[in-house]
Amino acid sequence: MATSHDSITPIEWREGGLRLLDQRELPGRECYVDIDTVAAAAAAIESLTVRGAPAIGITAAYAAVLSLQARVAADPTRWQVGFGADLELLQAARPTAVNLAWAIDIMRKVALGEGAHDVVARALATARRLHSEDIQINRAIGAAGARLLQKGDVLLTHCNTGSLATAGYGTALGIVRAAAGRDRLGHVYVDETRPWLQGARLTAWELDKEDIPFTLVVDSVAASLMQAKRIQAVVVGADRVAANGDVANKIGTYGLAVLARHHGIPFMVAAPVSTIDFDTPSGDHIPIESRAADEITSIAGVRSTPESTAAWNPVFDVTPAALVDVLVTELGTLWRPTRERLSACRKDRYSS
Amino acid sequence: MATSHDSITPIEWREGGLRLLDQRELPGRECYVDIDTVAAAAAAIESLTVRGAPAIGITAAYAAVLSLQARVAADPTRWQVGFGADLELLQAARPTAVNLAWAIDIMRKVALGEGAHDVVARALATARRLHSEDIQINRAIGAAGARLLQKGDVLLTHCNTGSLATAGYGTALGIVRAAAGRDRLGHVYVDETRPWLQGARLTAWELDKEDIPFTLVVDSVAASLMQAKRIQAVVVGADRVAANGDVANKIGTYGLAVLARHHGIPFMVAAPVSTIDFDTPSGDHIPIESRAADEITSIAGVRSTPESTAAWNPVFDVTPAALVDVLVTELGTLWRPTRERLSACRKDRYSS
Repeated sequence: MATSHDSITPIEWREGGLRLLDQRELPGRECYVDIDTVAAAAAAIESLTVRGAPAIGITAAYAAVLSLQARVAADPTRWQVGFGADLELLQAARPTAVNLAWAIDIMRKVALGEGAHDVVARALATARRLHSEDIQINRAIGAAGARLLQKGDVLLTHCNTGSLATAGYGTALGIVRAAAGRDRLGHVYVDETRPWLQGARLTAWELDKEDIPFTLVVDSVAASLMQAKRIQAVVVGADRVAANGDVANKIGTYGLAVLARHHGIPFMVAAPVSTIDFDTPSGDHIPIESRAADEITSIAGVRSTPESTAAWNPVFDVTPAALVDVLVTELGTLWRPTRERLSACRKDRYSS
Repeated sequence: MATSHDSITPIEWREGGLRLLDQRELPGRECYVDIDTVAAAAAAIESLTVRGAPAIGITAAYAAVLSLQARVAADPTRWQVGFGADLELLQAARPTAVNLAWAIDIMRKVALGEGAHDVVARALATARRLHSEDIQINRAIGAAGARLLQKGDVLLTHCNTGSLATAGYGTALGIVRAAAGRDRLGHVYVDETRPWLQGARLTAWELDKEDIPFTLVVDSVAASLMQAKRIQAVVVGADRVAANGDVANKIGTYGLAVLARHHGIPFMVAAPVSTIDFDTPSGDHIPIESRAADEITSIAGVRSTPESTAAWNPVFDVTPAALVDVLVTELGTLWRPTRERLSACRKDRYSS
């Protein structure tokens, strides 16, 4: 069974600019957009041209390089004010995934911390390193998660946490890839993940490319799968893990966690250590993004509801740490995460 | 607040034939189809032109009249064999809702039970009676359910259980209507109900016509609503209630029941007594319809997944009786239904 992910290049630095695979067009069309300015990068993050917590972190890192290229060229000695404004623009693009703030913080320190010489080159080297390290991190997550599985295990996953959501390989989908590569994966059920259909459009596209057998279901089928004992574990990613272990992730994750606990099915969260936010004490403090109502009231551009329909479209929810059976990071597996157990990851946060 | 439902006429017997509001076209277009044969009626049920357990029961009753009109005219003395075949065709249209079998059973007894004279007229009178009684039944369900609510209560409902799903007024949505009419309804959240979007298309359309304030959400938001204590009860319909109280209903219902129990929120099932199937001992014996994969793999006629995507599309699930806090029928409220408590409804089953 194939474990390559090289056919998917969602983020690429080329010829001094950033090229993104436009995830809004998948799976129908594979087209790429060239991003030459911070404003364009922020718009790409906001519009979901690129999405997935690690992927928007890497995009922001390269966007910081775009900022420095422009700001240093315009004013070699006083570029810092404009650079700071650019980072704020990036930070405002999406609120929930902490990887955005994490990458921006690293890029700010690199650019401002070591004197003014070669700042663009240093920043680019850092962005490239974050990019390449993310793939290695995901391979480590995949291996650690797959070790928890037994041959023939059937998984349920939600949203897209694969190569498209990261620098490559994926977090929760990295565990699916690693399990398939080690011949431990019986099957994987994929939630379509309303409203944006990341499962139906993106995860299905990745699994199809990898020849990993999967079955698509609407989100509300998950409970029936568990009731029928057809899955052995739920595997999801995270957009932010609070210091106490609460997990913000795609809307629907919290419901899956409650259902998994009710049915005695392990609930696994896969994320890099960079997703753990020690500055956010608990899930109550994580900002939850709500997006436009027309993501629900229209389907494929066609209005599906009466004109005056009001809709509420929160795109993340918070799963209390008590419902997380295991957090899988590049450092290994952390059972039943608590504030104390998570703090062991802290020293590694900026180790790179 | 308006409580009229008269603007919606999903099923009508006119000029010797059956006219159905085509629910596949709502809310974009209100168009009607004339049904003149049993085959056309069966196709309308199978294709979801008409859907909702009580509504397909009434449609089947009128379809039996269409059968008798044709069969008796063709052979006034030996129409019974063809009539029996027609009823079998109807019965095969959809498997889960017991109201179909219930109506067919009544029509068979009426047609075959009292001699051959005036059989068409007798059958039509019976179908008309089932039709008009259903509205009265739903008003009784609505009143009984609304009595359980307190002023300002916020409800969550799933699928469409309103005038479109019944002869009029609705079951679970009848409770919403009755609560609104009695000034007890704080608000109602409507699950969009994938894959067929009965909530987004049909329930939203009905509530909009009634000026009952509502908010549409994707199905996986329900858990967040409960977590935030924003709803006081979940109100759903049923396609079949087994003799032990297990409830088959639209996919997603079981998950809502688990979530409601986890959050200590009452879970209400609203259905006429005709939906209770004393011949089905438990939910394990209820046939669960799976529909075509393309209801998931295409959105509004546009393919949303890779070509080779496999999908599993069960359109009902089974909620164990233990998760049902109250069953509301036209006879009143039945708390924590069990085989013993449900049997009290039995004598009334064919009372009409």
